[in-house]
Amino acid sequence: MERKEISKSVLKRLPGYLAYLKSIPEGASHYISATALANALGMGEVQVRKDLAMVCDGGRPKIGYPRSVLIDDIEQFLGYDNTTDAVIIGAGKLGQALLGYSGFEEYGLNILAGFDVCPTIQETVEGKPILPMTELENFCKVNKVLMGIITVPAQYAQQVCDQLIACGIEAVWTFAPVHLDVPDNILVQNENMATSLALLSMHLQAQMKERK
Amino acid sequence: MERKEISKSVLKRLPGYLAYLKSIPEGASHYISATALANALGMGEVQVRKDLAMVCDGGRPKIGYPRSVLIDDIEQFLGYDNTTDAVIIGAGKLGQALLGYSGFEEYGLNILAGFDVCPTIQETVEGKPILPMTELENFCKVNKVLMGIITVPAQYAQQVCDQLIACGIEAVWTFAPVHLDVPDNILVQNENMATSLALLSMHLQAQMKERK
Repeated sequence: MERKEISKSVLKRLPGYLAYLKSIPEGASHYISATALANALGMGEVQVRKDLAMVCDGGRPKIGYPRSVLIDDIEQFLGYDNTTDAVIIGAGKLGQALLGYSGFEEYGLNILAGFDVCPTIQETVEGKPILPMTELENFCKVNKVLMGIITVPAQYAQQVCDQLIACGIEAVWTFAPVHLDVPDNILVQNENMATSLALLSMHLQAQMKERK
Repeated sequence: MERKEISKSVLKRLPGYLAYLKSIPEGASHYISATALANALGMGEVQVRKDLAMVCDGGRPKIGYPRSVLIDDIEQFLGYDNTTDAVIIGAGKLGQALLGYSGFEEYGLNILAGFDVCPTIQETVEGKPILPMTELENFCKVNKVLMGIITVPAQYAQQVCDQLIACGIEAVWTFAPVHLDVPDNILVQNENMATSLALLSMHLQAQMKERK
């Protein structure tokens, strides 16, 4: 179907629909209604109907959506059906955890290798090599890598980001808690776990104070 | 110092200052100026000065901030100096990766155990037990756990969240890509990695189309 402009809030809900649709056993009905989806996920029916209309043409009154078509359409929309090759820069604890996490594959993310200034820490994680930074440029060009994941300490993140862009990277997923300056054609997504943890911790402290 | 109301954008920058301050070698000057911090992190001096004024009284003209005081103040502000005990529900790939990741300790997060409906997968990860869900309530009450981390599939997230709240949890960190309904006194932080990956993937697809 023709790609419509989609809001970030719809985009946030699509992975939830997808996860639910994929969890339905093979033997179940081939069709699913917006009502059934809404009930299963505890959401409003109108919202589910509107969201699905953004990505799938196939809904039929009183029958619903063919489940497999809906799964394919959401996956295609979210880009999970194209595999994106990526590299991770920073092979510390977080970098190694991400490198070893095979769950990203279902989102179409394929992490090829980790890079570090001192790559001796651990040679491979789950069969994926950790290479010295000096090999980054060549590796990215040979493997046509377009996504870089940054897990270095905050003060090195901008420098690493600049290096990645020089190597041809166009999408940056960063776990470093700093703002990164990039040219307009580069997209940066910041996964700010430290901020989430700080907000949760502040909430708990405030709750405890209230009780005193 | 008296706690001021702080914006989320300031809060997002504090972990970056902290990471940089902690990376400065022991032997360096005991003082650091807002100018030096701004230069090191590629930020505006005025912004750094304003941000630090929110959390620390100690800045002196022409001298700067005593580094150790600034570190303590930011850590205290972010709650990293109080250890928060947490449990993880869902011991799949992501749950196990988080359970085994020791880097959360520097943010004051101490994950005590994982829980799963079928806890036979792997008995312990890095010395931390994976227990059956039937033991969750008792475990949380005995250990006075206030934070729960949700890494179950999307369609089980609300049910798990309700269970956690029934066990006395007041702060929920969720990696499931669905909205969770909670009472007003509970804070939910959603770490939406699937959405980040979808946005990055969509960006790369759009870039490729432009080139054709």
